[in-house]
Amino acid sequence: MKIVIAGAGAMGSRFAIMLKRGGNDVTLIDGWPAHIEAIREHGLRANLNGEEIAVPFSIYSQNEIPTTVQADLILVFTKAMQLDQMMQTIKPMIGEQTKVLCLLNGIGHEDTIEKYVSTDKIFLGNTIWTADLIGPGNVRLFGDGSVELQNIEPGKEEDARQLAAVLADAGLNASYSENIRYSIYRKACVNGTLNGLCSILNVNIAQFGQTSTARAMVQTIVEEFAAVAAHESVELDVSEVVHHIEETYDPEGIGMHYPSMYQDLINNHRKTEIDYINGAISRKGRKYQVPTPYCDFLTQMIHAKEDILAAE
Amino acid sequence: MKIVIAGAGAMGSRFAIMLKRGGNDVTLIDGWPAHIEAIREHGLRANLNGEEIAVPFSIYSQNEIPTTVQADLILVFTKAMQLDQMMQTIKPMIGEQTKVLCLLNGIGHEDTIEKYVSTDKIFLGNTIWTADLIGPGNVRLFGDGSVELQNIEPGKEEDARQLAAVLADAGLNASYSENIRYSIYRKACVNGTLNGLCSILNVNIAQFGQTSTARAMVQTIVEEFAAVAAHESVELDVSEVVHHIEETYDPEGIGMHYPSMYQDLINNHRKTEIDYINGAISRKGRKYQVPTPYCDFLTQMIHAKEDILAAE
Repeated sequence: MKIVIAGAGAMGSRFAIMLKRGGNDVTLIDGWPAHIEAIREHGLRANLNGEEIAVPFSIYSQNEIPTTVQADLILVFTKAMQLDQMMQTIKPMIGEQTKVLCLLNGIGHEDTIEKYVSTDKIFLGNTIWTADLIGPGNVRLFGDGSVELQNIEPGKEEDARQLAAVLADAGLNASYSENIRYSIYRKACVNGTLNGLCSILNVNIAQFGQTSTARAMVQTIVEEFAAVAAHESVELDVSEVVHHIEETYDPEGIGMHYPSMYQDLINNHRKTEIDYINGAISRKGRKYQVPTPYCDFLTQMIHAKEDILAAE
Repeated sequence: MKIVIAGAGAMGSRFAIMLKRGGNDVTLIDGWPAHIEAIREHGLRANLNGEEIAVPFSIYSQNEIPTTVQADLILVFTKAMQLDQMMQTIKPMIGEQTKVLCLLNGIGHEDTIEKYVSTDKIFLGNTIWTADLIGPGNVRLFGDGSVELQNIEPGKEEDARQLAAVLADAGLNASYSENIRYSIYRKACVNGTLNGLCSILNVNIAQFGQTSTARAMVQTIVEEFAAVAAHESVELDVSEVVHHIEETYDPEGIGMHYPSMYQDLINNHRKTEIDYINGAISRKGRKYQVPTPYCDFLTQMIHAKEDILAAE
């Protein structure tokens, strides 16, 4: 299968390597010159569960998109705020039959993708695979993961199952989901609480969980997500989701970790994806006339913090 | 006039010195042993606009309240969260004719004082005098200020005017206010935005004012204060109050300062008065069935930060 990985960062690199080793024809698109140069020179180097490998790839920058390659499948792996620009750039690679699979965290990416591809070609998913970018052209890929995905247009179940099979054949442990929007909203609730609150309060997940007001804040934010999701026929089980979030506080689990937004914003002074998590709930809330004040306020505070840290 | 200063911190010390120099019989009550000891030994020392003075006072700790002194006037100058305990302690000094004047920042202190004194004896006010506590028994009193105050029970205007005259005679630039609740709410809006937001975002007032979302956050919080105030017949002019807050951002004015809550919480790891500012609006909002989500969330975040910093 002719696959384009649009955004070859840590996670894009994992999927690229596994899909290529699984026998697919994989092309990379990325925006980081040093990364592109390193991959062209040495291949994409990876430590894959302890094995040092280097895999050759065709890789293009976003201002040199080939007009001769049309993808069967595009996997988007940009930062949320770069998705629109990426879709715009790779238009020449989108043909009549091109499918797009989005595994990004956050809410509402299909609204962006729909501007470039009809909904019968769009598939949404979730993944718990991880990956670390070590430096230009160099990633570290440890541990196990899985993918679940689904068509967004009714009647395209078979296409979604075939897509899952392609990923599964490459060892990506992929399966068809009966209710991907539920999974996406449920995961977004985790990110929509821990990411923003740990960043603003300057703490790791366990420290946040130990505060006397964590429960009340998490509960209210999840209720806002649920109220919005209900307008999209997704009935979140609020107490189950709150419990799921509270399980992450365990210092023996991931509790001692700082969420990705903390690392982006507080450590690296990078702009966050808040507009695609809590900010997306605020936008949808306005659309559905559902008040979402905690998501509004948290989004505003994260943007204020971006301004204060001159995040780029 | 026999005046008791209940809480002889920085501001209590200023009022004590000025009222005593104005010819009143002033007694101090405080809870800090080193402060009490220093004042008993050396008098209350002050640098009053450059002049070094030491003024002798009777001072009592809260567990040795004299039963023989009954006050004509009690001025409460505790931290908001210590007010109830202080009123409880000084009960023996409260007689039939004792008036209580509260100039504390924040909302709803009269509800606490009413548990000990009937409303016809309670007077509320505002002050812009400042004072710094240098160390035990030692304060620095610079600059100018003023006081405005009013009775809370109709018909007690004359008593309020006489009280203002006592303070004015002592050089405290005091006057009777026709609408003290408006002034209190307006000042609480300043504290209810800048205190919490600068503390959570870890910035001074000017830095906060420069963020792209400052306006939206301030506007929403002031609207919540106004909605609650309206239930107490106080009609806040929201756009005037927002403008008033935004004037503080000027780095040539107080913009480079960190609000008092920042100093308490972030610098000194002390518990904050948030429950008497935004938290008071949340409580009143529940009572009046007015939603106050920004005040709720900000109060929860400040409490979380208190927990994280093990504030005492």
